[in-house]
Amino acid sequence: MSNKSIRVTYRLETPGSVEALAAKIASDQSTGTFTELPGETAEVQARCAARVEQITPLPDVQTPSFPDPAGHGPYNRADVVIAYPLEAIGTDIAALVTITIGGVFAVRGLTGVRVMDIDLPSEWACYPGPQFGIEGSRRLMGVPDGPMIASIIKPSLGLLPQEAAAVIKQLCDAGVDFIKDDEKLMSPGYSPLEERVKAIMPVINNHQQRTGKKVMYAFGISSADPDVMMRNHDLVMEHGGNAAVININSIGYGAMSFLRKRSGLCLHAHRNGWDILTRHPGLGMEFRAYQKIWRLLGVDQFQVNGIRAKYWEPDDSFVRSFGDVMTPIFSQNDRALPVVCSGQWGGQAVETYERTGRTLDLMYLGGGGIHGHPMGPASGVAAIRQAWDAARDGVGLEAKAMDHPELAAALAKWQN
Amino acid sequence: MSNKSIRVTYRLETPGSVEALAAKIASDQSTGTFTELPGETAEVQARCAARVEQITPLPDVQTPSFPDPAGHGPYNRADVVIAYPLEAIGTDIAALVTITIGGVFAVRGLTGVRVMDIDLPSEWACYPGPQFGIEGSRRLMGVPDGPMIASIIKPSLGLLPQEAAAVIKQLCDAGVDFIKDDEKLMSPGYSPLEERVKAIMPVINNHQQRTGKKVMYAFGISSADPDVMMRNHDLVMEHGGNAAVININSIGYGAMSFLRKRSGLCLHAHRNGWDILTRHPGLGMEFRAYQKIWRLLGVDQFQVNGIRAKYWEPDDSFVRSFGDVMTPIFSQNDRALPVVCSGQWGGQAVETYERTGRTLDLMYLGGGGIHGHPMGPASGVAAIRQAWDAARDGVGLEAKAMDHPELAAALAKWQN
Repeated sequence: MSNKSIRVTYRLETPGSVEALAAKIASDQSTGTFTELPGETAEVQARCAARVEQITPLPDVQTPSFPDPAGHGPYNRADVVIAYPLEAIGTDIAALVTITIGGVFAVRGLTGVRVMDIDLPSEWACYPGPQFGIEGSRRLMGVPDGPMIASIIKPSLGLLPQEAAAVIKQLCDAGVDFIKDDEKLMSPGYSPLEERVKAIMPVINNHQQRTGKKVMYAFGISSADPDVMMRNHDLVMEHGGNAAVININSIGYGAMSFLRKRSGLCLHAHRNGWDILTRHPGLGMEFRAYQKIWRLLGVDQFQVNGIRAKYWEPDDSFVRSFGDVMTPIFSQNDRALPVVCSGQWGGQAVETYERTGRTLDLMYLGGGGIHGHPMGPASGVAAIRQAWDAARDGVGLEAKAMDHPELAAALAKWQN
Repeated sequence: MSNKSIRVTYRLETPGSVEALAAKIASDQSTGTFTELPGETAEVQARCAARVEQITPLPDVQTPSFPDPAGHGPYNRADVVIAYPLEAIGTDIAALVTITIGGVFAVRGLTGVRVMDIDLPSEWACYPGPQFGIEGSRRLMGVPDGPMIASIIKPSLGLLPQEAAAVIKQLCDAGVDFIKDDEKLMSPGYSPLEERVKAIMPVINNHQQRTGKKVMYAFGISSADPDVMMRNHDLVMEHGGNAAVININSIGYGAMSFLRKRSGLCLHAHRNGWDILTRHPGLGMEFRAYQKIWRLLGVDQFQVNGIRAKYWEPDDSFVRSFGDVMTPIFSQNDRALPVVCSGQWGGQAVETYERTGRTLDLMYLGGGGIHGHPMGPASGVAAIRQAWDAARDGVGLEAKAMDHPELAAALAKWQN
């Protein structure tokens, strides 16, 4: 019997005692129930009982995260580490999630709980992790250094396959390294995946023959039916594609595991739905904990928003997320390529570079920022590359724009 | 091109205009982005644009659901119906979830959003739905009428397979119709599923040979790896088992779909983790919307807590959930058997019966209420059956207990 543990850090909030709440969670999530039982012997507890290992008090708050109509503050808070015996969980993600996450949110007497981090023992290195990751992405795109510049089909929905192919030709000519379907595009009636693959791959392949550059195209192959998703995968492979957009929350852990074992594609994760888990700071789950599970399952490229994104997420949260996917779990190879996206047009390059550890190991994705550039998409791509050159060289964007009209035009349109 | 729509009802909350927010969601979740694009033509919009169909104002609130540090109330609220063209989503759950749910929680400018309901057109009747449901559950258990009385192994974790088998013998002799593994028990080191199946199924089969009664035993076969889950499924089938506990959120939509297509087992859904989505009344998702997806995917039996459950859920929410799983989506056969559970010991039978439409089509699950009965488990089961007889006959529990000592003992211990 192993003595190893899985350690989960929770941010707890309660009108009562944090210590008592932590003890209750440890009991409920292992051997306890609402009444005493003859069978809960010391031996049984030793095999399975979770233990509260550490309690770090935090300032209390006056407003509860879950409404507490009958109660009143202050609400006590602490970061609590609970250790679960590996013997009771094993290495299955379904067991991990059920025991250490799922049930905790049902416990009475708490007004807030957020899973901050999950610390996994080396037995969990049995997961495949990313097949391509940062190095494989660079190799497939033929971008040995510098940021990988990416775009997306716009408008996001509604184009017929041949209309999409025309947009892609434009983006290839504009010099991008990567293009993707919008995450909302999978296989709708007006653009079935098969027709889209057959319309788009010849554009990618022709561009490669003409220029030697194979642009990575990520098709939306997600399906809540793994058999369908594998057929989608095979279709992309047969036509020479090398990547796919996966809506990880919309397919679930099992489907991701199933795909990864059989996949030859670089898997680009879109985390739509993650906001449900994380937007309230007192509830749900930090990205740090969340992304570990998905990286173990095989995400190669992870969308993490960006500076001044068009969504609710604050810049600080993006910066943490970027660091999270770049931090090894068990090895350098289980890092995912951070995909910086949402409202990006180059103007955020310098700040992104300075705040994420001055790395160029990232994909930088401009949608509207490329399609909507006043001088056209090629200038949109050029402006973004100029902005990243400025970041790398420690030159201000305005200075760089002095002799780079594409960046100057982007600044004129979007800098406020 | 179909003109049909999928209608989703959201409860929106915002310091600004609810009308403007609804319009923004409809745009963001279909063809729009942060800047105007030349390709977003009228034709493209007609194919895919979502439309706000109805806005029902609700009283405003002073406390935002998501904290709004820079802002102040009042926060405006409304129930908003948005219609998404079926043409843009099709019949894949991954597309439904990505387009109508996932992205909505990322939109700026809202302080609350809760998915209240999802109205699906008849094309969605293509899903398999429950294989057994209410009628099949009755048939497999041999319970043609009345509530199905169920129990669970306690302590929930930590018993060796042979220790569990001894508990199960006791429960079979006590006269239950159904027994399940705790949802936290899957295949841990001290009780691998294979050993557990081999220890438990002989007890079930011997009991059947002696008494003619086949107790339904639901094994915890969940795995985040569908290949492993199918091996688990096959193992249970080979040994004559007929049911499984599935931690639906811990495996995800895809794994459930994969299992249902290949399953010969009655699938008993535990929704642990659902609380993350639903506990804050201004955020997340109502059970009504959530359970439709899982029933279409094939849930036969759905745990919905109960009156005075040991968790946070209010009784009113349980009553609504019970009604939800009993309401047809496309036909009577897609209803799931409601499993009333958590802290149940019989004392809640009368109120449950009166508040859920006086039906006996339910499973009533006592864990501690059976194991912890002062006269032993057989008396625990007897007390629960007596309580349900009282409910059906319109007799008060106290009156019934006058000449039923098992119920009297339960009331003495747990009635407060």
